[in-house]
Amino acid sequence: MKRAIDLAVHNVETGGGGPFAALIVREGQVIAEATNTVTTSNDPTAHAEVNVIRIACAALRNFQLGGCDLYASCEPCPMCLGAIYWARLGRVFYAGTRMDAAAAGFDDDVFYRELEKEPALRRTPMIALHCSEAAAPFRAWLESSIRRPY
Amino acid sequence: MKRAIDLAVHNVETGGGGPFAALIVREGQVIAEATNTVTTSNDPTAHAEVNVIRIACAALRNFQLGGCDLYASCEPCPMCLGAIYWARLGRVFYAGTRMDAAAAGFDDDVFYRELEKEPALRRTPMIALHCSEAAAPFRAWLESSIRRPY
Repeated sequence: MKRAIDLAVHNVETGGGGPFAALIVREGQVIAEATNTVTTSNDPTAHAEVNVIRIACAALRNFQLGGCDLYASCEPCPMCLGAIYWARLGRVFYAGTRMDAAAAGFDDDVFYRELEKEPALRRTPMIALHCSEAAAPFRAWLESSIRRPY
Repeated sequence: MKRAIDLAVHNVETGGGGPFAALIVREGQVIAEATNTVTTSNDPTAHAEVNVIRIACAALRNFQLGGCDLYASCEPCPMCLGAIYWARLGRVFYAGTRMDAAAAGFDDDVFYRELEKEPALRRTPMIALHCSEAAAPFRAWLESSIRRPY
């Protein structure tokens, strides 16, 4: 965790992006590390946790990271938490909290609270369009002989 | 939305990945479209919504997409919803629901319910490590003259 915090501080000092870093560890070995690069890569999804998951998956040539743990300098936001679940990571350790992030101007806590609201009442409205074909992709999926579930 | 659904079906038929697609629209113009490529790019974050946000941001050379709307063939998962917030998208339109996705074997709804639990009680445990240096990255951020908030 000390390494994650040091990387996060260094990322700020070098203008790499937000004050966040993360590592992925498997059986005591660090297999990937990354910092937040949102502003330097023009990618709002380039949080440290998303970046480190992508690096680790590329290294392992796998879209799942079962048996790996993630160390994050700060509590993951809802996007990163979702990414952690999809990557099937084992455990998540973190140091700073969403409140520490809020005090520094970040919206992690705001977004957690948005998720608790009814979809149609959120600040970014979620509008269900009723399409007769909405289920067609899922029908195609279930009928496909080449599908690869994840 | 018809285009998103057609792309999602095509993605299944061509083995591109999961049965999902998304478009980003600004002032009536499609500025990006993408499908899910999780299994073909070995990237658990490569959902259609995340992919289309990355493509649109690269095209606009901006890490925010204010004034743009997202059309998704299915209700975004928690990861994608977080990405949508960080991208500051205006509105989200979707066709299929998390229940349709669950019926086809996808964990979107499971993960939404995980987020409602206390962090320590989740299936992927979130463990806060109390580090004296946890606030150091945020201190560095607030003191930085080159920081670029997002």
